[in-house]
Amino acid sequence: MTERLVVVGGDAAGMSAATNARRGRGPDELAIVAFERGTTPSYSACGIPYWIGGVVADRERLVVRTPAEFAEKHDIEVRVRHEVIDIDCHRGDLTVRDLETGAEREEPFDQLVIATGAVPRRPELRGADAEGILGVQTLDDGEAIRLELERKPTNVVVVGAGYIGLEMAEALTLRGFEVTLLERSPQPMPTLDPDMGALVSDALRKVGVTVECGVEVRGFDVSGRRVSAIETANASYPADLVILGLGVTPNVGLARDAGVAIGPSGGIATDGRMRTDVENVWAAGDCVESHHRVSHRPVSIALGTHANKQGRVAGINIGGGYATFPGVIGTAVTKVCSAEVARTGLSEREAADAGFVTVSAVIDSRTRAGYYPGSTPLKVKAIAERSTGRLLGAQIVGEEGVAKRIDVFATAIWNEMTAEEMLNLDLSYAPPVAPTWDPVLVAAKKVAEKVESDRGPVASAP
Amino acid sequence: MTERLVVVGGDAAGMSAATNARRGRGPDELAIVAFERGTTPSYSACGIPYWIGGVVADRERLVVRTPAEFAEKHDIEVRVRHEVIDIDCHRGDLTVRDLETGAEREEPFDQLVIATGAVPRRPELRGADAEGILGVQTLDDGEAIRLELERKPTNVVVVGAGYIGLEMAEALTLRGFEVTLLERSPQPMPTLDPDMGALVSDALRKVGVTVECGVEVRGFDVSGRRVSAIETANASYPADLVILGLGVTPNVGLARDAGVAIGPSGGIATDGRMRTDVENVWAAGDCVESHHRVSHRPVSIALGTHANKQGRVAGINIGGGYATFPGVIGTAVTKVCSAEVARTGLSEREAADAGFVTVSAVIDSRTRAGYYPGSTPLKVKAIAERSTGRLLGAQIVGEEGVAKRIDVFATAIWNEMTAEEMLNLDLSYAPPVAPTWDPVLVAAKKVAEKVESDRGPVASAP
Repeated sequence: MTERLVVVGGDAAGMSAATNARRGRGPDELAIVAFERGTTPSYSACGIPYWIGGVVADRERLVVRTPAEFAEKHDIEVRVRHEVIDIDCHRGDLTVRDLETGAEREEPFDQLVIATGAVPRRPELRGADAEGILGVQTLDDGEAIRLELERKPTNVVVVGAGYIGLEMAEALTLRGFEVTLLERSPQPMPTLDPDMGALVSDALRKVGVTVECGVEVRGFDVSGRRVSAIETANASYPADLVILGLGVTPNVGLARDAGVAIGPSGGIATDGRMRTDVENVWAAGDCVESHHRVSHRPVSIALGTHANKQGRVAGINIGGGYATFPGVIGTAVTKVCSAEVARTGLSEREAADAGFVTVSAVIDSRTRAGYYPGSTPLKVKAIAERSTGRLLGAQIVGEEGVAKRIDVFATAIWNEMTAEEMLNLDLSYAPPVAPTWDPVLVAAKKVAEKVESDRGPVASAP
Repeated sequence: MTERLVVVGGDAAGMSAATNARRGRGPDELAIVAFERGTTPSYSACGIPYWIGGVVADRERLVVRTPAEFAEKHDIEVRVRHEVIDIDCHRGDLTVRDLETGAEREEPFDQLVIATGAVPRRPELRGADAEGILGVQTLDDGEAIRLELERKPTNVVVVGAGYIGLEMAEALTLRGFEVTLLERSPQPMPTLDPDMGALVSDALRKVGVTVECGVEVRGFDVSGRRVSAIETANASYPADLVILGLGVTPNVGLARDAGVAIGPSGGIATDGRMRTDVENVWAAGDCVESHHRVSHRPVSIALGTHANKQGRVAGINIGGGYATFPGVIGTAVTKVCSAEVARTGLSEREAADAGFVTVSAVIDSRTRAGYYPGSTPLKVKAIAERSTGRLLGAQIVGEEGVAKRIDVFATAIWNEMTAEEMLNLDLSYAPPVAPTWDPVLVAAKKVAEKVESDRGPVASAP
């Protein structure tokens, strides 16, 4: 008998689940249909700032695959502009609304993947619904922002200096607009430690962005229906276009209403195989919470890489195989014009919150041997547990091309290496690509020395 | 009572040992003297091809520290142009010859570090001593090659297509010479698998190097005292300048004569703390052999990174601390004009030699999201143990900036991760720095799938 897999949400997680399930079970065994309320399945949300900035020429370049391709190559039916509005896990069916006609119908499922993604946080403040205040999440959001820019706004304000906020500030600067960036925390990128965050401020100011940190938005002034200014405790910032970069929240309403358990961080709770607490109901992507391998706490981190991997895991399992998603460690990277910023593991503050006592080291190095031309400077911070020397986190700020070095820390932290173990890693060296001691090893060495000196002298072995 | 540490060989390993020993024990406790037969301590041998190629302006840029700096900053006496010609471990002294005056004298030691480095392999062939045949090891070798180039040789031949051979071929091409590269193996860079080595051939030919592989040098024709041609089994190559890039051998004559044990790979045998089998005699750098963490065999790999780390470990131990050198995994990288090549772990052949049954995957990917401009292509090969999926090796060939991604494999292999474990690593992602699935993860995924399909279906857990 043919089973029926229904996927709710046709982006990275949902479509990875669908294609991987198909790989395990052919169309005779498993029918697969995905409902997507937007106009496009499988697009790159992370690419939207670059499309707005004009770095990526057109919207179609962000579309990974069309419904026709899924049908032809994978025998997967994708129905766009179809919104799932109710799930009945007990009966094994759901209600779908055709957003073109308004018609609603019931659809049965044997297996269900919930991949409803995340929604941008919107402040519950006076005037927040005014025209000219826009989030950045879907391709349609991107289209709306592009239209706004054609009106040539004179005062563009980005609220929130996380990844999307920074990328939007870059995009709008590239397009020639004067940009003000407001952030509640004392620094941009609150997931960095303050010392590294200050370097990001410098990079933003260097390209002409007005950066105002420690600023809490109180409300929006509206003129006609349109935003005219942003009010904070101490000032008013004129604004005829406001971009919200306040992060996202897992989109779990549908799952919650269906009786699926939501975890403490606000995402759908799953086990390692991406099963929810309801039989035959799976979840993956920005709507789920993940296990943080360093803090050992559940976290909701919206990121395409996790969505792809979780979708793959769910799909393999639905397809009859066995796979698990082992969790995350909070790796992230962004580029602000010629600056790159990356982090992994825990920041000092996050480590303290998780109960660790830490030591940290910040080092200055360069990307190549000192004598080899074309090297660029970078700053690397390494954070270790004071009592054991175990690496807990790392941050890198520098110029173009430096950020990928964070992946060595990510791999070392994933494997619970100590700083002393890491400094002996056999990493690649040649004068055009690294100093003899790669910057990441210098940072590990420096923090290992601090751990060692805190510990006091060790008797030498006989 | 003040002890006396004598260091034989004042380059990376020797001077790292000296400075780290000093950090542990002040001048009142430990006198430190280093003998260096060359004119300069602590220079970058790896930088020589770039100096010859004109990328690095002058010799002084390759000198890391001068004897005066060691004296001032570290209270370490460095005597250059002093060659140690005999060591008596029993009596605890050695004989040093002043190369300027020819005078010899005895010098006592309580602790000894042997850091005599490596010597370039020279073929024992007819005419191999002729003028115009030069190795690349010391700054003086570099100077000699630069002088030869001023004579405007018309036929420059590089023998050996390992790292130094490739870097010299690049350097000489950059200087405008027509270069022929001869290699005995069927491909350049014999430590790569043939499929990846072929890509290096392509890159070399693209910049105008004549690459002849599978060619065994039989002898050198000499005209007057000078080389005029290279003879191989099937051909004669006119040559008025020959650069030898045949690799190096650990320089262990002095140690062997002193009764210090030499290991099976030809380097001085040490324990993890860099102690030789003779009490109070330590060794570090290109003259020692290391434990290969994947093949579990001793290997002699001459590389500045290992030399620095081993020297550091010896120095910490001599200084009263405790440190160990945990071995190597054969990571290496080079750049040939706009191409970069990197490898780590074992190649397919090396893995077979070490008794592993392997599966491999080669993937094509790009450095950035497909839609983000400026991405460059790269090819990644991952090799895993067939029965367990454990990663054994990886190779990357691509354009400028791709090679450092090998460090993720190096860290994963170091930690004995399986391909399946690696593909779930939380690596950094943003469109300007990586596709959603980083190329290294795509390669891990592909090889994990091969391991899985070889293994057959696994029953899904209840």
